[in-house]
Amino acid sequence: MTMKGMGEFDFIERIQKRFPSSEKIPVGIGDDAAALSFSPNNLTLLTTDSLIEKTHFDRAYCTFFQVGYKAVSVNLSDIAAMGGRPRYFLISLGLPPDIQINDLDALYRGIARASREAGIHLVGGNTTVTQGNFFISITLAGEVAPKRLVRRSGASEGDRLYVTGTLGDAAAGLALLRSGDDPYSFSRLVHRQQSPMARVNEGLLLADQEIASAMIDISDGLTADLGHMMKQSHVGATLELAQIPISPALKRYALKAGVDALDFALYGGEDYELLFSVPEKRLHKLERLIGEDVIQAIQIGRLISTRKGLVGRDDKGKLNKISPKGYDHLRLNQEKTQSTQS
Amino acid sequence: MTMKGMGEFDFIERIQKRFPSSEKIPVGIGDDAAALSFSPNNLTLLTTDSLIEKTHFDRAYCTFFQVGYKAVSVNLSDIAAMGGRPRYFLISLGLPPDIQINDLDALYRGIARASREAGIHLVGGNTTVTQGNFFISITLAGEVAPKRLVRRSGASEGDRLYVTGTLGDAAAGLALLRSGDDPYSFSRLVHRQQSPMARVNEGLLLADQEIASAMIDISDGLTADLGHMMKQSHVGATLELAQIPISPALKRYALKAGVDALDFALYGGEDYELLFSVPEKRLHKLERLIGEDVIQAIQIGRLISTRKGLVGRDDKGKLNKISPKGYDHLRLNQEKTQSTQS
Repeated sequence: MTMKGMGEFDFIERIQKRFPSSEKIPVGIGDDAAALSFSPNNLTLLTTDSLIEKTHFDRAYCTFFQVGYKAVSVNLSDIAAMGGRPRYFLISLGLPPDIQINDLDALYRGIARASREAGIHLVGGNTTVTQGNFFISITLAGEVAPKRLVRRSGASEGDRLYVTGTLGDAAAGLALLRSGDDPYSFSRLVHRQQSPMARVNEGLLLADQEIASAMIDISDGLTADLGHMMKQSHVGATLELAQIPISPALKRYALKAGVDALDFALYGGEDYELLFSVPEKRLHKLERLIGEDVIQAIQIGRLISTRKGLVGRDDKGKLNKISPKGYDHLRLNQEKTQSTQS
Repeated sequence: MTMKGMGEFDFIERIQKRFPSSEKIPVGIGDDAAALSFSPNNLTLLTTDSLIEKTHFDRAYCTFFQVGYKAVSVNLSDIAAMGGRPRYFLISLGLPPDIQINDLDALYRGIARASREAGIHLVGGNTTVTQGNFFISITLAGEVAPKRLVRRSGASEGDRLYVTGTLGDAAAGLALLRSGDDPYSFSRLVHRQQSPMARVNEGLLLADQEIASAMIDISDGLTADLGHMMKQSHVGATLELAQIPISPALKRYALKAGVDALDFALYGGEDYELLFSVPEKRLHKLERLIGEDVIQAIQIGRLISTRKGLVGRDDKGKLNKISPKGYDHLRLNQEKTQSTQS
């Protein structure tokens, strides 16, 4: 059997069986980042994520500056989803022999921009020539006070479900780039695909003020990442489909391209927004932050019994089961289905 | 200009300029691992290293079990060279779509073997399908008490130079595999190429007992890695060529293949032995450990003024400058020249 015949969950479970977790590790395999207790006061967070040419990006669609920027962002997003403060990072590069120094400089400029914005420091790495495709793999270390750590598994029935920003933009941006249509008329969508910004400050606020009970970043798509949270928190969820935040740009694009904006928002990946659950008694703290415009977030549903699974309520109040299968089928960003984070 | 036209030192210096180090970071770019102060009592060590198919290994020469084992070892070796205790690791995989699940299982068995031997725990990672060559990138976190940290830069004129184990075996093993000769008659050499063992216990002892003033692991070859230590410690070195430890297997192989065993020992990479300097007043501690057979190490030279560079003394007492150029020229393991650790 090849990798194609094996789902990502089978694969992660196979690994977990071979590497049984030790009770001394606060968070091991299976969350956005690992949490390790090197220090008595703080947990050290560790995460790694790669961008591979032809799998995650194409030189025809983006510059090396953007690849560098995005490689940092996707890792920042994982630390943000734990409520952590990102600190230090390492870079592993696989470079085709024909790569231009100009491209490398652009890559490092993009990395430097993203790391300056986030206040993180490069502390090492490793560079190798490869006969295959270019790849960049970043490992990011952060920290969080043990009481502030937000896991995927902390949600309970009755908690409200929120999401930051708008969804589906990055997937629409990719569809647009691939279609060969003029990308300039939808530059917001294209920008979100090429240079996503991680919600580091939002993650910190939601953790520091003890608002979120569970949190995950949306890299694979809303339903897929909500599925991870549901599985690990042992809950189901109702989504208010009319509340799913869709940008004006995505609405315009959907109209023009004759596609369903909601499909992009539910199933499109790479938005790097935060999806989080909030217990009812903490709602006032969040609503205050939203009212003061400190956080841009919207309630999109609530968590229910795990037996009920994932349900969508449309604008007429009609309930429909959202099939997990629908996810793979409707997947816009095919290659991302082949990427698993453990 | 492409990467081919740029040396590895230019490249690392270029990166260092773009990412100025912060004084708050105990060790940033440019040593075997970064050292970070997450905790008041201990430094957290962080290193990353990759193995790429066709660059670092060939399926014709080694099994996936061996690739997994070695991917862990090369990272353990970097932590060992700082005097640290390895703790937790992350895996990034790039998988060609046609990879067999059997191969993946073998890879993870090799990783599990090496991690069990070293007592380290897998805490996360990331797996992606790539259209290019298979790669595995491991990030390893360890720790060390601030006073025990051994850097490349700690050596002084007059310190004695030691190396653990024997040198040149791994490079000869690779030459043997590539030559198509019967590898079984030199299984020790082949084994050291395929499944190198990191000197973790030795590194810990040398640090804990405050024996080593500077240390580096030999991944690029003795002269190359000694060159890093010389540059960062601002010293030169005399090597006693007759003392360079060469295994009986390498001697036999050199005789049979009509090559110079010393060339392999001086310029061959991937032995993952530890090269370290010892101030004269600490020699008694080391000699006791060697006498008790706790550490297998031998004195191969001493550190001299930086103006004198690198000098070799042959068995007749004749001194010859060892040219850094000789390194690239005589390099056995070509692809390793294209791998830089920062």
